[in-house]
Amino acid sequence: MLDCNKAIAALDWSREPQGLYAPIAYALSSGGKRVRMQLVLAGCRLFGGDEQQALPFAEAIEVFHNFTLLHDDVMDRADVRRGMPTVHVKWSDNTAILSGDQMLIEAYRLLEGVPTKHLPALLRLFTRTATEICEGQQYDVDFETRDDVEISDYLEMIRLKTSVLLAAALKGGAIIGGAAPAEQEAIYNYGIHLGLAFQIQDDLLDCFGDPATFGKAIGGDISCNKKTYLLLSALKSANEAQRAELECWLVQTHPSAEKISAVKDLYIATHARLAAEQAIAEHTQQALKCLNLLPDNEERKQLKQLAQKLAQRNN
Amino acid sequence: MLDCNKAIAALDWSREPQGLYAPIAYALSSGGKRVRMQLVLAGCRLFGGDEQQALPFAEAIEVFHNFTLLHDDVMDRADVRRGMPTVHVKWSDNTAILSGDQMLIEAYRLLEGVPTKHLPALLRLFTRTATEICEGQQYDVDFETRDDVEISDYLEMIRLKTSVLLAAALKGGAIIGGAAPAEQEAIYNYGIHLGLAFQIQDDLLDCFGDPATFGKAIGGDISCNKKTYLLLSALKSANEAQRAELECWLVQTHPSAEKISAVKDLYIATHARLAAEQAIAEHTQQALKCLNLLPDNEERKQLKQLAQKLAQRNN
Repeated sequence: MLDCNKAIAALDWSREPQGLYAPIAYALSSGGKRVRMQLVLAGCRLFGGDEQQALPFAEAIEVFHNFTLLHDDVMDRADVRRGMPTVHVKWSDNTAILSGDQMLIEAYRLLEGVPTKHLPALLRLFTRTATEICEGQQYDVDFETRDDVEISDYLEMIRLKTSVLLAAALKGGAIIGGAAPAEQEAIYNYGIHLGLAFQIQDDLLDCFGDPATFGKAIGGDISCNKKTYLLLSALKSANEAQRAELECWLVQTHPSAEKISAVKDLYIATHARLAAEQAIAEHTQQALKCLNLLPDNEERKQLKQLAQKLAQRNN
Repeated sequence: MLDCNKAIAALDWSREPQGLYAPIAYALSSGGKRVRMQLVLAGCRLFGGDEQQALPFAEAIEVFHNFTLLHDDVMDRADVRRGMPTVHVKWSDNTAILSGDQMLIEAYRLLEGVPTKHLPALLRLFTRTATEICEGQQYDVDFETRDDVEISDYLEMIRLKTSVLLAAALKGGAIIGGAAPAEQEAIYNYGIHLGLAFQIQDDLLDCFGDPATFGKAIGGDISCNKKTYLLLSALKSANEAQRAELECWLVQTHPSAEKISAVKDLYIATHARLAAEQAIAEHTQQALKCLNLLPDNEERKQLKQLAQKLAQRNN
């Protein structure tokens, strides 16, 4: 099996001007799990395809993902990513903008390496996905100042911001592996549900995770009033007294352990936590159902386990 | 003949989220001469191709060009573009970054519309060109703090930053029009020399242009010590006394009419102005020479006139 980290490390960024390329090498060197890249390869193997043929698409997806992180970190003023200073901190905002742009272009350059007969389909898939991710990012920004966000809006936002890239990774691999259109659609939908379950689980862990295993401080979303699945569910199901208490906490903008603890209690009392757990279970079930439409082999077992593990993960 | 402004105005940006798409519509509405788009169509017509087939590539080039302007304006902190507030001023830096990213993706989406048999070649041309433009922008930034910039470095920088997009526009149109490889190369090189002549003429006009016709204040490059063809030539050809005087002015960072006037005099005395005029004439000649390799028809006459007009333009 291909080593994704090795493949990414083998990309050559030594050319001039280094002011443009060194930040790209840096952004790609910080590791991460290369999940999306692995999904491309898994999608290809599932249909008996040759991983090597799927590698350029996998690299394109991975470089694209890291481009979004680079520009997101500028927009969010995030100083640290995977334990390292972000590009705009280590260099400058302008460097992060321009090297980020170049990363997006490099992702398209990598697409030149896909099998020619699949180029039009993969290009369309890639571009549609990239567009949806920008749309998701914009909705996320819009939600910060909107007070009419529904759970369905939130699900659509995380579908765009998180799920479509996982789904496109799997589908792209499947196309290269030779999947039929119905199979492409099934594996895409598996990716969508996997992504939704993953993101709602992320919301839960941010709030109820074990600080020892989660890796981030608990309660960050509560402190900044982020409109997560939990908050939107609580606002929807709260009785009058609970809603009054919740809204009281929402106007407290100063972060405090007291607020985190009180809001967590409200998430339990309003059954928001339960609703989130049920939503994760439901999307995991939906993901598994999609798998039934795919070839029954060792690769499919792996994808089944992936969905089950995601629903139970603690970090 | 296709109306480029109409074609750009017909692109639909009414979809949601408007926070993402309204700035794109705005950036594309401010007009400009659509020069690059027209070069695509001219390149196609020159070889007897159908303009309509070249339209998606022309639109992609135009949207890409406006994407670079959008991000450049953020990086340069430019507040006004074509008489209108720039996107980062009218909205925010974050909007300019994200909507700019989406414009780059939209340029690739437009490429999906090119004739399928030309897709691989046009995609490669587009991506190589986009990369070169980012490299040119980075060199331009690097030059600000370098004190060893040679005229050859400067020419390479403006080749990347300005010429390659004109050249790629012409070549892309030519590919769609059915040009042979040698013809594609000739029209590409015509575009390169045209761009170099254009940019050096721009340097000259910024310094010696007529304020009544140029449209911008005269002497902007001198005020900010921009390493133009004129400054680099003057530094190279100056005698000891002239160099001392020039360097004296370069440390005066406060803009003044006195500085502009004195540096202009030095550009004349060191024959830097003459060198720039000769360089323009030479690249115009080179551009015309490339045209001799192309089909002799009405379109070629137009391209000949374009090169001649550029060398004599006053705005």
